[in-house]
Amino acid sequence: MQLFDRAAISAAVTLDQDALSAVEAGFAALGRGEAVQPPILSMAIEEANGEVDVKTAHIRGFSRFAIKVSPGFFDNPKRGLPSLNGLMMVFSAQTGLVEAVLFDEGYLTMVRTALAGAIAAKHLSRTDSRRVAVLGAGEQAKRQVEALRLVRDIEAVDLWARRPEAANDCAEQLRAMGLAVTVHESVRAACAEADIIVTTTPSQQPILSAADLPEGVHVTAMGSDSPEKRELDASVLTRADAFVCDSRAQSERNGELKAFAGSADGPSAGSGADGELPFKVFELGQVIAEGQRLRLTPATITVCDLTGTGVQDTAIADFALSRLT
Amino acid sequence: MQLFDRAAISAAVTLDQDALSAVEAGFAALGRGEAVQPPILSMAIEEANGEVDVKTAHIRGFSRFAIKVSPGFFDNPKRGLPSLNGLMMVFSAQTGLVEAVLFDEGYLTMVRTALAGAIAAKHLSRTDSRRVAVLGAGEQAKRQVEALRLVRDIEAVDLWARRPEAANDCAEQLRAMGLAVTVHESVRAACAEADIIVTTTPSQQPILSAADLPEGVHVTAMGSDSPEKRELDASVLTRADAFVCDSRAQSERNGELKAFAGSADGPSAGSGADGELPFKVFELGQVIAEGQRLRLTPATITVCDLTGTGVQDTAIADFALSRLT
Repeated sequence: MQLFDRAAISAAVTLDQDALSAVEAGFAALGRGEAVQPPILSMAIEEANGEVDVKTAHIRGFSRFAIKVSPGFFDNPKRGLPSLNGLMMVFSAQTGLVEAVLFDEGYLTMVRTALAGAIAAKHLSRTDSRRVAVLGAGEQAKRQVEALRLVRDIEAVDLWARRPEAANDCAEQLRAMGLAVTVHESVRAACAEADIIVTTTPSQQPILSAADLPEGVHVTAMGSDSPEKRELDASVLTRADAFVCDSRAQSERNGELKAFAGSADGPSAGSGADGELPFKVFELGQVIAEGQRLRLTPATITVCDLTGTGVQDTAIADFALSRLT
Repeated sequence: MQLFDRAAISAAVTLDQDALSAVEAGFAALGRGEAVQPPILSMAIEEANGEVDVKTAHIRGFSRFAIKVSPGFFDNPKRGLPSLNGLMMVFSAQTGLVEAVLFDEGYLTMVRTALAGAIAAKHLSRTDSRRVAVLGAGEQAKRQVEALRLVRDIEAVDLWARRPEAANDCAEQLRAMGLAVTVHESVRAACAEADIIVTTTPSQQPILSAADLPEGVHVTAMGSDSPEKRELDASVLTRADAFVCDSRAQSERNGELKAFAGSADGPSAGSGADGELPFKVFELGQVIAEGQRLRLTPATITVCDLTGTGVQDTAIADFALSRLT
């Protein structure tokens, strides 16, 4: 049994094509029905403003599976500690014995989340996409752009964030990556010229609506990962020519499909039952596995909602161990 | 962050009164509504005849919580490896940071499971209980008896197991503990004189029925912990004067209440909805917390179904760390 710390893991695993291929293969296995992915175990620790999520999946044919524990304790910054943390345990899929513990402090989650955004853009956005609008200015704002460069020739970033100082900090970091960055005062202005829009906020209210979408844009919404959060107005989903998510079950519970399951402002409010949505729901894994072409013209609008899946965790942990051992 | 192996953990934690008190306090907190205990995360890995369960709970006021991973890979014995395994991670309930990883290989699960049986007997069996019938001859057969001695003056054990050679081995080990042990060829014969009956098998068919129950007996059924398993005929539950379980939700899914939820042989087959059971369901934590007296006369028959709860895991992990650090 081996233990690895964040320093070792981040030296071995970076946002590169090999890591992207590993996560993409995980999604494809899920799409082919070759993965077992149980519902997320989630526990709130209210008195500490904390929560912990456990995700796992097994991909048939893989020799290992990961179980990831992600604590989020939102009073931690007051103590000088990061809110998000976590580790992954890697088990043999033949014997159930522990092979390794990856004390990555959330590093691999950062990587596989950024890569999922790139994978969505690879299969859904226009191949000539150059300009990205990023809503949000946290760690993923930067990482999503970094990962997108693996699949598209990104030249310019239009940035909006609730806190202008955070937007300015993030803009500096993106400029250091050689990108032309503009900070905007409104979502509408940030998105006006976008080929790709990435929403990466912890918002509990929709921040993007259909009126903000330029023709031919691809939207990746990766902020909402719990029942309380939400980034997209229902109009974004109904306006889209194709709506894709990483897991329909998770999108309905934690992601943007919540807008259509009992909320007051969804067009089919109160329904949410299968087949009652005013649009078809695709899953990213099936799009990859079946080579579905959802972008039919340069004007097609695509939306991908990412909530984060156990299959990504098993895929990136397996990849990390192959690099580390 | 500290790591402990099985040797260190088993040296620090044994089946004693302090450990029993720690687990009992966990149940009591659950009974008072002071614990958060999410549903078990369970994943099957069919091609390896394996499964993995993840359990957790937070007890309000506790400074730590545990997340336990229990893999069961049932082809392992062919490879010379144990079927059951596992580890517990212990996190700060204030910050979510990992405090320790207990690589106990299932040792603490053995301890907290045996102690739960003793706690059930402490609150439900006759105080003058001397004679235990044990059905099954695995690790827990011995450990349940060992733990019962913490709460009752056990003198004699009547043993039955499907495989006679396993029963004889187990009998030898129990005799080495100074007990009078008789191996029986039938469940009926083993239970005829019992003050306490413990069922500790992986059976998928009922092995104990109402006709096997002597007057005044207490039954602890701890074998069934998955949708496939079952030890008690429905008649045992309807015959009992009081039916208790560690968690009603888990008993309905993984334990003996399955007999009353859609199975063909339950008296209220097909129903299973709340309040439709032909008896009242008590939870062990409430019995402890509220000091409920369910044994009204020496002839009262009590049954307790134990499926294994996250609150036991957090309680024993917290106790183990208090001994280890």
